[in-house]
Amino acid sequence: MAINTKIEADQNAPAITQILGAFVAQHPSGGWPAEVEHEAHRTFLNWLGCAVGAAHHEAAWAALRAVQVLEPAPQAAVLGRADRVDVANAALINGITSHTFDFDDTHLKTIIHPAGPVCSAVLALAELTGATGRQVIDAVVIGIDVSCRLGNMMYPHHYDRGWHITGSTGTLGAAAACARLLGLDTEKSIMALGIAASQPVGLREQFGTMTKPLHPGAAAKAGLMSALMAREGFTASRRAIEAPRGFAQVVSTKYDWSEVTGELGSRFEISFNAYKPFACGIVIHPSIDACVQLRAKGVTADNLERLDLRVHSLVLELTGKKEPADGLQGKFSVYHGCAVGLIEGRATEDEYADDVVTRGDVVATRRKVVATIDDSIDEAAVDAVATLKDGRQVHVFVEHAIGSLERPMSDADLEAKFSGMSDAILGADRTRRLLDACWTLGAAGSVRDIVALASAARP
Amino acid sequence: MAINTKIEADQNAPAITQILGAFVAQHPSGGWPAEVEHEAHRTFLNWLGCAVGAAHHEAAWAALRAVQVLEPAPQAAVLGRADRVDVANAALINGITSHTFDFDDTHLKTIIHPAGPVCSAVLALAELTGATGRQVIDAVVIGIDVSCRLGNMMYPHHYDRGWHITGSTGTLGAAAACARLLGLDTEKSIMALGIAASQPVGLREQFGTMTKPLHPGAAAKAGLMSALMAREGFTASRRAIEAPRGFAQVVSTKYDWSEVTGELGSRFEISFNAYKPFACGIVIHPSIDACVQLRAKGVTADNLERLDLRVHSLVLELTGKKEPADGLQGKFSVYHGCAVGLIEGRATEDEYADDVVTRGDVVATRRKVVATIDDSIDEAAVDAVATLKDGRQVHVFVEHAIGSLERPMSDADLEAKFSGMSDAILGADRTRRLLDACWTLGAAGSVRDIVALASAARP
Repeated sequence: MAINTKIEADQNAPAITQILGAFVAQHPSGGWPAEVEHEAHRTFLNWLGCAVGAAHHEAAWAALRAVQVLEPAPQAAVLGRADRVDVANAALINGITSHTFDFDDTHLKTIIHPAGPVCSAVLALAELTGATGRQVIDAVVIGIDVSCRLGNMMYPHHYDRGWHITGSTGTLGAAAACARLLGLDTEKSIMALGIAASQPVGLREQFGTMTKPLHPGAAAKAGLMSALMAREGFTASRRAIEAPRGFAQVVSTKYDWSEVTGELGSRFEISFNAYKPFACGIVIHPSIDACVQLRAKGVTADNLERLDLRVHSLVLELTGKKEPADGLQGKFSVYHGCAVGLIEGRATEDEYADDVVTRGDVVATRRKVVATIDDSIDEAAVDAVATLKDGRQVHVFVEHAIGSLERPMSDADLEAKFSGMSDAILGADRTRRLLDACWTLGAAGSVRDIVALASAARP
Repeated sequence: MAINTKIEADQNAPAITQILGAFVAQHPSGGWPAEVEHEAHRTFLNWLGCAVGAAHHEAAWAALRAVQVLEPAPQAAVLGRADRVDVANAALINGITSHTFDFDDTHLKTIIHPAGPVCSAVLALAELTGATGRQVIDAVVIGIDVSCRLGNMMYPHHYDRGWHITGSTGTLGAAAACARLLGLDTEKSIMALGIAASQPVGLREQFGTMTKPLHPGAAAKAGLMSALMAREGFTASRRAIEAPRGFAQVVSTKYDWSEVTGELGSRFEISFNAYKPFACGIVIHPSIDACVQLRAKGVTADNLERLDLRVHSLVLELTGKKEPADGLQGKFSVYHGCAVGLIEGRATEDEYADDVVTRGDVVATRRKVVATIDDSIDEAAVDAVATLKDGRQVHVFVEHAIGSLERPMSDADLEAKFSGMSDAILGADRTRRLLDACWTLGAAGSVRDIVALASAARP
């Protein structure tokens, strides 16, 4: 029962906390290539769409009702709603909604969903302070760099151990971003990171419950408060991240310091961020992508006789559910994913509604799918052959699914994804204006315009 | 650098989260012996005095200024001050102040300071809901039982690993206490514990900074919010504490489940709570106690020629500083502790002020102290011989210091400690009434009276 694992402390770590504090405070505004700048806009846009989309999910309602007990001041918007709460709780709730559909972004090297903690904290605080779009983009790039570098430092051991790495590194990312937004100096940025280091959030055991999306939300809130406290003179250890009894050595058994220090300020981890095209586990994405491509080639639910998939064994191990009974089970069914990919040409959260999973044409189509394990096929690939009722065959081979780093979603794809979530909540016209505002955020004089667009009209 | 420690998961843990949830929701009100009931009052009183005492410390000011950025609703008192903030942030700040002097309570089996997270969350929430004193005492006993049992389950490995166990178990204790206070049913109490399990707080690396007392404060706040969210239907894993990727197996390498389940509901960990008589590390307490006793036997700074101490080696290893230059260094000097014990008959936070540590008579007296290592003397003991200027010798042997479980502080001792911190802030008269209100808390119709007494008068 008790496992006594003696762990040797590393007494000679570099001054990670101070190095990151100096980076947060001193890196030049916009000090990165144009591609990084654009990726920051894509990350922000994708995050905002997810937050708006889940604004009325049960988890958002429950969190908001709990927050309302505090009678919060109306400082910052709950995105996609007319409600306003204090800046810390806006960070909390927007962090929750942005991750509720499991449809946000992924730093593929670490499986961190980096925007949730960072953007949720930054936008709420920026609304309060009236920050410019430039300041927001700077804070997002720097905050995500901090959280993902800490993730690289500890991955995979920290994740394997059971930490939900999005929340555990997210508090530090959010603190870094908010320290930057507040214009804290190096010393106070170090303190912000130090205060945040004591508040890692997130256990993998929570997957499948509302506490999973709580992780980025709670990380956003704790990081934001850490920066505010540091600004007021609250103190922490200057070695809080790397000391023998500091963050890294307490929450991980691997800590490769060079992942933090290497190319700091010249390589930006936001460059490696990817966006989910489908609202389900990444292992099904190649199969859905293949079906979307078959649809474009004229295959329909009506003319399809049988669909043969050759997939890696992991696909059936994780998502082999043949007869899903509801939306949640649908997320674990490659058969359902293929059916909606073929019928609707997409697999957004809408396609995982309970009544879609049980709809006659969807059920009939998924029963035509025959998946066969072939481990010569890579995890990231699929080979699909549709046999039509007239005997013709249509073949698609997907080497890398849409949404991978090799085949990233285009800006237009991201807009379509955004609209798919936002149109029903904000209306198509406002959604269109919001998209335009996202693409030009870095030049915006104040973020308050974008927040106003992203809030539902007051009744 | 990277240490790859493979840890075998325990797949067969008992249903700890559900067992604790049922205990929290269902254990009868006041369902414990009179001694437990009295200890709960002592724990509450001691906690309240510490929180009032540090109300104007720099850490309290910094935290309060950060919280004021949120424009909090005036729902609950910041103890010892006229300020009022929302209930979650009142829990935060009172948790910080109660631990700022390092003068609070200690569950000696685990080194947990249990009152900070639990009482800070409970009193703030109770003020908002208008709870009775009975409900508060019930919540305190149950919350402290949960946090200390989880501590027993993981101690010492969890602490050795680097977690500040007060904060890491404190979130769960505070959640349990608040779930009880809100009257959540078993299912929702399980959810409250589950939500809290994802939010452990506290690294030992922070010792010596303001983030150390942040730990019980942040734990109180997170636990309180977890209970509020659970009440509103927010969900978490029903096995959040014990699952392979749950709390215990993620934050500790030892987890003795029987420490949670054994005698649950009949043995109460609050019975093993102790209160610090001196505002410094526990290893100096026997020496200070000896000096207080010598003073009572007529030894004074004037008639003392030389004081010989025989102490365990740990005393000089941890607190061997001969010439402390300020209050903080004074906490690491057995010589200073002895000097103020002899001169003032006490060693409260006042005796660790910078100007006391450098005062002429104190410096002269500490230089008369000669400490010799003798490992036949237990850590908890000291042998002291005062040689007077007239040649007489006075001998005191302390086997267990005041404040230990063997020689607990009396109720009168606790009152004196409380007054020593509170008189200067609330005034002697109000302090006296507050003490009386503490002793009768379990019978109080509302906690709002005690809160009003513990708040500084409005200007």
